[in-house]
Amino acid sequence: MARAATGPDDRVDPAGRSGAREEGTAVKKIVNDPADLVSESLAGLAAAHADLVELHTDPLFVTRRFGRPDKVAVVSGGGSGHEPLHAGFVGVGMLDAAVPGPVFTSPTPDAIAAAVAAVAGPAGVLALVKNYTGDVLNFEMAAELVAAGGTPIDTVTIADDVAVADSTFTAGRRGVAGTVPIEKLVGAAAERGDALPELAELARRLAGSTRSMGLALRAGVVPHTGRESFPLAADELEFGVGIHGEPGRETRGPGRADELVDALLAAILTDGVVRGDQQGVLLFVNGLGGTPPAELYLAYHSASRRLAEQGIDVTRSLVGTFVTSLDMQGISVTLLDLDAELLELWDAPVCTPALRKGM
Amino acid sequence: MARAATGPDDRVDPAGRSGAREEGTAVKKIVNDPADLVSESLAGLAAAHADLVELHTDPLFVTRRFGRPDKVAVVSGGGSGHEPLHAGFVGVGMLDAAVPGPVFTSPTPDAIAAAVAAVAGPAGVLALVKNYTGDVLNFEMAAELVAAGGTPIDTVTIADDVAVADSTFTAGRRGVAGTVPIEKLVGAAAERGDALPELAELARRLAGSTRSMGLALRAGVVPHTGRESFPLAADELEFGVGIHGEPGRETRGPGRADELVDALLAAILTDGVVRGDQQGVLLFVNGLGGTPPAELYLAYHSASRRLAEQGIDVTRSLVGTFVTSLDMQGISVTLLDLDAELLELWDAPVCTPALRKGM
Repeated sequence: MARAATGPDDRVDPAGRSGAREEGTAVKKIVNDPADLVSESLAGLAAAHADLVELHTDPLFVTRRFGRPDKVAVVSGGGSGHEPLHAGFVGVGMLDAAVPGPVFTSPTPDAIAAAVAAVAGPAGVLALVKNYTGDVLNFEMAAELVAAGGTPIDTVTIADDVAVADSTFTAGRRGVAGTVPIEKLVGAAAERGDALPELAELARRLAGSTRSMGLALRAGVVPHTGRESFPLAADELEFGVGIHGEPGRETRGPGRADELVDALLAAILTDGVVRGDQQGVLLFVNGLGGTPPAELYLAYHSASRRLAEQGIDVTRSLVGTFVTSLDMQGISVTLLDLDAELLELWDAPVCTPALRKGM
Repeated sequence: MARAATGPDDRVDPAGRSGAREEGTAVKKIVNDPADLVSESLAGLAAAHADLVELHTDPLFVTRRFGRPDKVAVVSGGGSGHEPLHAGFVGVGMLDAAVPGPVFTSPTPDAIAAAVAAVAGPAGVLALVKNYTGDVLNFEMAAELVAAGGTPIDTVTIADDVAVADSTFTAGRRGVAGTVPIEKLVGAAAERGDALPELAELARRLAGSTRSMGLALRAGVVPHTGRESFPLAADELEFGVGIHGEPGRETRGPGRADELVDALLAAILTDGVVRGDQQGVLLFVNGLGGTPPAELYLAYHSASRRLAEQGIDVTRSLVGTFVTSLDMQGISVTLLDLDAELLELWDAPVCTPALRKGM
């Protein structure tokens, strides 16, 4: 078996992560010791939503309360710093377990395997993994451990970001905000009782048809260093940014919301996968951590108007702060072609800390 | 009748609001013309939640879809820049209508009266108003117009902020994040059929027993000027800040989350109203616009632990970005004593764009 990936899944200086913050540097965050950020934040989530989720601390993962061992368990995870992803989506109709790593660092194969063991029944497990080298490798190793124990498991990689072909710590496209609608739709299909092969096929189809792109107005501040994860001048924004502050397509000046949103939509539509020619599209406007709801809804308004002008119906929508990059100021836009089955899965009840509908 | 208040309800330079932004200044926001921020953002909210709310554009207000003219209508409003407050809380089990003014500026009496007229039935109307001079005056004038037309109406003022006795544009304490649990509890009581006098009495009791305090790590950027609404150095935070960037109790250096949260709790508990000696307390940790979910949950964890040490049970909770000050980085903490009736009202179903539970 290959050695577990322990390195970062982004370009943050590893020295910073191990405590190299300069003496006396003021970190303007609501944080105690940066080393405890993930565990303390998860403890808060679990306490505030004790009716929905359960926290496991050694190793660290979150499971759904009142699990359904009769269905396929849907599991996800990855480096922290993207909250509420993934733990905020554990609950009825979405994920059965989520495994967070340290900030911007993959969870270990052992932690993933422990989370899977906690929720796996005879119907097996589907793991949804964002395409970062560390995550993909560690989920693969966990899947080997799980399969060796006799539990059926399949893994689907999400790579929805059209911004760049390859990136820091990623071979191929990055997995970003599109993960949320995919987790929701796959979770609903698992809840209705789909078997593992059908569920994996649905997840692969969704991974192939969900496309995203984001922009940053200001990078997030890394808690261990107190510094922004990449520099942006007062009159610059990063277009096509990744959720760890990886470089995007270009650094450019600010523009009107309509221009910014147009550019994101054009990049997604030019990619050619999203066409909206069946039951329209799901339009998801996501906040990257430091952008307030008013701006997200304004971007949604802009995007839905623009899509209508191009003859694409927005038939379902999601607007909010769901996949973050610490406190990065910025947004991403995700589009996903809907059909009759996906409409039904989208409208199915979901009850998680970060997404609730229909129950 | 007194002249309507047209001035700001905060200390932002009115010249900035009318378009005095310096030529070429880059505003790092998702915005088109700042003058259209409120209307475009509301249009996005209404489009994304067309199943829950309806947008009226002249004058500008939002009403609940599938209204219940048989019950008391609950109405709120105030200057914008605090989204999702108030329009995000229109729906089943909370508000029947919300009236937004321009950014940090009260809605006019005419707009308030029009919103009331759109939702008022024979059971009458209860208006919930945050304590800012402009809001109080304009809601009073609207209430006169409404009452003159024969509709029973009562108005309750919310002043939950313990930070300061008086403030910029406020006589008495400011109304801040405590508005959300009050709107939720009063909305649930209206939904179950409480008559106007009982509903107003409940609202007054809640206004008297809900206490909040906030802190800012960085001020929000005013869209019309491109400048932060007040200056904070890299090593400063404003303790007891208002939601328009009004001055607080003191400017001080950053600290650990536990110290910051302790200070907020101490200010609230020292006030003497919240005791948690019946059915415990509701603990509400609110993000002020630019603070990501991970930090809010960490603050919640810190606060709930600290309250437990003091023998105060947190029996209900709310964590999220609900009452903002543009993109201000910071949090507020709200506490509210619960009893058996309030527990029942809190647990009642609610379905609005920004808060959903139990349906």
